[in-house]
Amino acid sequence: MSTDRLSSMSKEVKPESVSLCPLGTAAAPEQELLCIFGTGDFGRSLGQRLLQSGYRVVYGSRRPHSCGPVPQGAQVMSHAAAAQSASVVFLCIHREHYDFLATLEPQLKGKVLVDVSNNLKKNLYPEANAEYLQRLIPGAHVVKAFNTLSAWALQHGPSDSNRQVYMCANSAAAKQAVAEVATKLGFTVLDRGSLTAARELEDFPLQLFPEWRLPLRVAIGLTTFFFFYVVIRDVVYAYVDQGKDISFRIMVSLANRVFPVVSLIMLSLCYLPGVIAAFLQLYRGTKFRRFPDWLDRWMLCRKQLGLLALGFAFLHVLYTLIIPIRYYVRFKIAASTISKAKENQTSVFDTTTAWRTDSYYSMGILGFGLYLLLGITSLPSVSNALSWREFSFIQSKLGYLTLFFCTFHTYLYGWDKFLRPSYYKWYTPPAYMLCLVVPTVVIVLKLLILLPCVDRSLIRIRHGWERTNPEDDSKKSLLT
Amino acid sequence: MSTDRLSSMSKEVKPESVSLCPLGTAAAPEQELLCIFGTGDFGRSLGQRLLQSGYRVVYGSRRPHSCGPVPQGAQVMSHAAAAQSASVVFLCIHREHYDFLATLEPQLKGKVLVDVSNNLKKNLYPEANAEYLQRLIPGAHVVKAFNTLSAWALQHGPSDSNRQVYMCANSAAAKQAVAEVATKLGFTVLDRGSLTAARELEDFPLQLFPEWRLPLRVAIGLTTFFFFYVVIRDVVYAYVDQGKDISFRIMVSLANRVFPVVSLIMLSLCYLPGVIAAFLQLYRGTKFRRFPDWLDRWMLCRKQLGLLALGFAFLHVLYTLIIPIRYYVRFKIAASTISKAKENQTSVFDTTTAWRTDSYYSMGILGFGLYLLLGITSLPSVSNALSWREFSFIQSKLGYLTLFFCTFHTYLYGWDKFLRPSYYKWYTPPAYMLCLVVPTVVIVLKLLILLPCVDRSLIRIRHGWERTNPEDDSKKSLLT
Amino acid sequence: MSTDRLSSMSKEVKPESVSLCPLGTAAAPEQELLCIFGTGDFGRSLGQRLLQSGYRVVYGSRRPHSCGPVPQGAQVMSHAAAAQSASVVFLCIHREHYDFLATLEPQLKGKVLVDVSNNLKKNLYPEANAEYLQRLIPGAHVVKAFNTLSAWALQHGPSDSNRQVYMCANSAAAKQAVAEVATKLGFTVLDRGSLTAARELEDFPLQLFPEWRLPLRVAIGLTTFFFFYVVIRDVVYAYVDQGKDISFRIMVSLANRVFPVVSLIMLSLCYLPGVIAAFLQLYRGTKFRRFPDWLDRWMLCRKQLGLLALGFAFLHVLYTLIIPIRYYVRFKIAASTISKAKENQTSVFDTTTAWRTDSYYSMGILGFGLYLLLGITSLPSVSNALSWREFSFIQSKLGYLTLFFCTFHTYLYGWDKFLRPSYYKWYTPPAYMLCLVVPTVVIVLKLLILLPCVDRSLIRIRHGWERTNPEDDSKKSLLT
Repeated sequence: MSTDRLSSMSKEVKPESVSLCPLGTAAAPEQELLCIFGTGDFGRSLGQRLLQSGYRVVYGSRRPHSCGPVPQGAQVMSHAAAAQSASVVFLCIHREHYDFLATLEPQLKGKVLVDVSNNLKKNLYPEANAEYLQRLIPGAHVVKAFNTLSAWALQHGPSDSNRQVYMCANSAAAKQAVAEVATKLGFTVLDRGSLTAARELEDFPLQLFPEWRLPLRVAIGLTTFFFFYVVIRDVVYAYVDQGKDISFRIMVSLANRVFPVVSLIMLSLCYLPGVIAAFLQLYRGTKFRRFPDWLDRWMLCRKQLGLLALGFAFLHVLYTLIIPIRYYVRFKIAASTISKAKENQTSVFDTTTAWRTDSYYSMGILGFGLYLLLGITSLPSVSNALSWREFSFIQSKLGYLTLFFCTFHTYLYGWDKFLRPSYYKWYTPPAYMLCLVVPTVVIVLKLLILLPCVDRSLIRIRHGWERTNPEDDSKKSLLT
Repeated sequence: MSTDRLSSMSKEVKPESVSLCPLGTAAAPEQELLCIFGTGDFGRSLGQRLLQSGYRVVYGSRRPHSCGPVPQGAQVMSHAAAAQSASVVFLCIHREHYDFLATLEPQLKGKVLVDVSNNLKKNLYPEANAEYLQRLIPGAHVVKAFNTLSAWALQHGPSDSNRQVYMCANSAAAKQAVAEVATKLGFTVLDRGSLTAARELEDFPLQLFPEWRLPLRVAIGLTTFFFFYVVIRDVVYAYVDQGKDISFRIMVSLANRVFPVVSLIMLSLCYLPGVIAAFLQLYRGTKFRRFPDWLDRWMLCRKQLGLLALGFAFLHVLYTLIIPIRYYVRFKIAASTISKAKENQTSVFDTTTAWRTDSYYSMGILGFGLYLLLGITSLPSVSNALSWREFSFIQSKLGYLTLFFCTFHTYLYGWDKFLRPSYYKWYTPPAYMLCLVVPTVVIVLKLLILLPCVDRSLIRIRHGWERTNPEDDSKKSLLT
Repeated sequence: MSTDRLSSMSKEVKPESVSLCPLGTAAAPEQELLCIFGTGDFGRSLGQRLLQSGYRVVYGSRRPHSCGPVPQGAQVMSHAAAAQSASVVFLCIHREHYDFLATLEPQLKGKVLVDVSNNLKKNLYPEANAEYLQRLIPGAHVVKAFNTLSAWALQHGPSDSNRQVYMCANSAAAKQAVAEVATKLGFTVLDRGSLTAARELEDFPLQLFPEWRLPLRVAIGLTTFFFFYVVIRDVVYAYVDQGKDISFRIMVSLANRVFPVVSLIMLSLCYLPGVIAAFLQLYRGTKFRRFPDWLDRWMLCRKQLGLLALGFAFLHVLYTLIIPIRYYVRFKIAASTISKAKENQTSVFDTTTAWRTDSYYSMGILGFGLYLLLGITSLPSVSNALSWREFSFIQSKLGYLTLFFCTFHTYLYGWDKFLRPSYYKWYTPPAYMLCLVVPTVVIVLKLLILLPCVDRSLIRIRHGWERTNPEDDSKKSLLT
């Protein structure tokens, strides 16, 4: 360990142990010198930002005299000279060009190397860029950082989506040095642990809602299926059977039939895996065996399923509320009023219908209100403020209440139509009957679980109890 | 201080002062060994998670050879041997069994003891578990941590509701050691200070919306009262007086009478304590005397009162918007149109009514819009981004504007019915008249406070000025 | 560096390097003594809170024996004696009185001085208070902290809007010492870097939505203009032309004409600067030249523009949904139904109108749904959880889709009225036609940018490529 390295570290890294010394001169901090390798977009943006924040910047370049534009105020040197002069080196070059760094090993020894690189695809290489770099130059302290930022965020300063700098490294002191630079640049640092987390950080900028894919596919699949289902049962049937063209109903009436159906199914799909898991645990007699993969993946996307369901419910509410201002509805109501006025009919007010429809609307509104409450509590800042007990109370107890309200709402809509053959056009049930299957199953299974005897076993299992089986002694090996 | 303790600490705790030394070898960190006492649910889940994150784990057990299942890859030893081997010991045992730890004092001396325990009830013991543990083994460094996590969160990794690990301890180095483990496990650490905060951390998992209790009780009480009030005045009265059964109106019409009433009262209850506090400060001539307990508690739950009020307002909006699609309303409108058509009446358009009802709706919508804005700014992440001045501007200025809009909305609804005896069935006023009392009082008192002379005194008091009273010299002793 | 200063630091500041020593006695931490200069409102509130959190407090005062009330339990000494006794001194005095501190230099040397001061206005002094203080007493370690808190927050403990303590200082050890106090008081510490950030922290409590000013002015300007425009075209025109008084329509009908118009214009104003910037970059052939100031400011307030536009859209939705319960609308419908019934007309159902109006509503609902989604993702806690790619996908792709839906919604509303002269009262177009200009321009320009040839150039420029111009060699100097 050369002395010049140590002294450069103590100047740069500012570990707590040496911070007492410069206290007497703390009033006038000297401008630190940072080194950047690479004069590409990111390198230039980073340099510009560092200069604006009061650092001195030196660029390392293959051809220091013809390296393309660098921000005003920065120096350009050879790679070796630049690396020598500073204790923190930002590597703004592609992984493909890391090889040449091996030749700089003596200069980079003991330095903090900040790897800001990203790849174009996931799993392009067997190991993370930062881990590869650490292997290449074992004497340096590699820090993975800044890779989740865009060049735009660096040029314009932290904005809403770009306030956070994720960071990981094996050396705490190196991490601290980079964290200070990031803080001075106006970013908030989130420590993600040791360099083994580098792959995760490198995958982060590539991801585009990975956990939303499955729920979105389910939503699109269900929407497509039910859309064609209701188009065939309504529009095509009316055309074939009565020769009427009611295709204009697609835009609102049929949409408003598809949305609630998909919403209810997806809400119940949120709660189905929990019920399945409970029965699986009861059957196995232990909670320490892993669930099948499909169940694990299902359980991990429950939040997304629920939020999509809420989106569909929201559309259903708006589509319902505009009903009375639609031309078609106004026309129909006027026509029926006029015909009644002419025919001198006196229709009788039916109290049962009034009770039923009002209850139907009430259930819908209360269900939607609870639905929204569930959505609000899944906002990160709200759920962070909740204790585990509070979160599970809302997501489980209130969640099932929501499911119950919405299912009941749909049953009230159906009312006595379940048994009237005239509603089964072409021998198919209406969409809302189809959609009742899943929620009904979930509610029935949940009620089974709530039976005292079943509930007691399940609670014991969830507290870690295991049903021991004299014949089956291999349980211990399944624990991983 | 034994040397083996010091060396084990320096390996484990990684204080900044020694981090310069292992820099040369930072590339290949050795796997640390952590010790867990207790093979219950939490202990096993924790061990499993630690193993997955790259730690080595040793369990301490009374009977190392027959201790029940432990995760694959973990060792099991006697308590003494296990404690000796690692510098961080996680205690996953109940407080009731802490006694035996006293016998391990020599082995635990200088170790970091992580207390993850929770109690079944609040105030079960005179001191926090972690403080009791620290008293039991004064030579160890007790850290309270991980107790707010569920075994589920440990098994499945951090999720939405479980990302945060609260932590407190007297030793900064011990805290740092545990924080590094938590970070490596994927959690975010929140430092809560010294071990005196342990009780608070232990109470956290037990709480179920403590600050929502009082507001919820107020909401339920008001809802119940007004529900029966309107049922008696409407349904029972109609039955007794005219023999008509209009009970079907309960589901929507009466609900939509109760919700706005409760919402407006609760919104004004948000602002009443502030006004009372101002008058109390004016009367006392100082802001340094504590408010009575009831006022303190009231002021602390204003946010919850306001959010519940917003919930009721939201229901009121939805119940209002579905009015035109209700069977009852359509029937009534059709009947009235038909009867007019038959009787050849020509009703005259009344501009005053049009003005009044449109203003009424406008006030309601604007009030609800502001209401929502208040609700959004009370989301943790939004209010954190506001300066104190901005927050108080929104919650006070815009809050009063909201209250004014909503009160005015209700007055416009009443309009000229306040003086017509026919509306006072059984000599009782309609619900909306009752609910106007509190907001009107709040607005009048607020206007009084805004009078220049009163305002000036209040501002002086709030800036720390005190009215000195020659007779009353004991003021200084009241300052606590 | 005097030895007593060093020892007082090591007791107080607890740097990590010395934390190993007190480990043996960590069980019973001694109460620390903190010093406060100033017995005004903030000083007293701070002292009270420190005492409650278990600190000992000594006040420094010019006249220790007649200094006015201090919290019970605190001592009062002369400034010099008080400063001598503690290693952290909170300065709760106005900047105007800092001068006398120069006389205390010997006592304050090596101490941590916490500057909590704020000014009454921005830019009152050439340098930040904390920087001035550091210049005044170069031997002390000035920490800017606590100035964003109100005395109220200190008296009552951290609440929603006051959990965070922003802090900056040149000395890491001094920062650490103050951070520990703040944590123990229950606050969360946010490190803002070195003392150069002090001005920013001092400006923070003074600001009242600075970034909302411009968007709010635009919103108010547009609302006022369009309000008078529709009042003149509707109410005044009807009065002048037909002698009818339809002023009652102002409250709802005209409001509901102004809100959507302003909303759509403001939404398109969100996306216009991005398009202008793209063309500017294409024209200049580089992304490294700064945009003109007006464009920079415009781009920085896009989020606020969008959120205000969402607010107007929300009002538009509510005003639309109450249409069918308005007195005026019910009267008109009843009148038209009656007249049709009498005149024995049979109006024919027009499928085209049904298609058009239903599509119009559908577009509006889908546009509003996406609008809300954009709003939700701009909540700080949500946008923090998104990667840069995800955020730009939502704000750009979904944003343009929203703009397209809303513009299409408006075109469907217009339909065939664009060419009918009767709609151009007094030769002016209806408001919705006016408001279509900006969104149409934005969409057309965006489509131009999406043309493959243009898109390719733009992407190259945004990846850092620059068009080199043989005649123009001065590019390098423009890079700042």
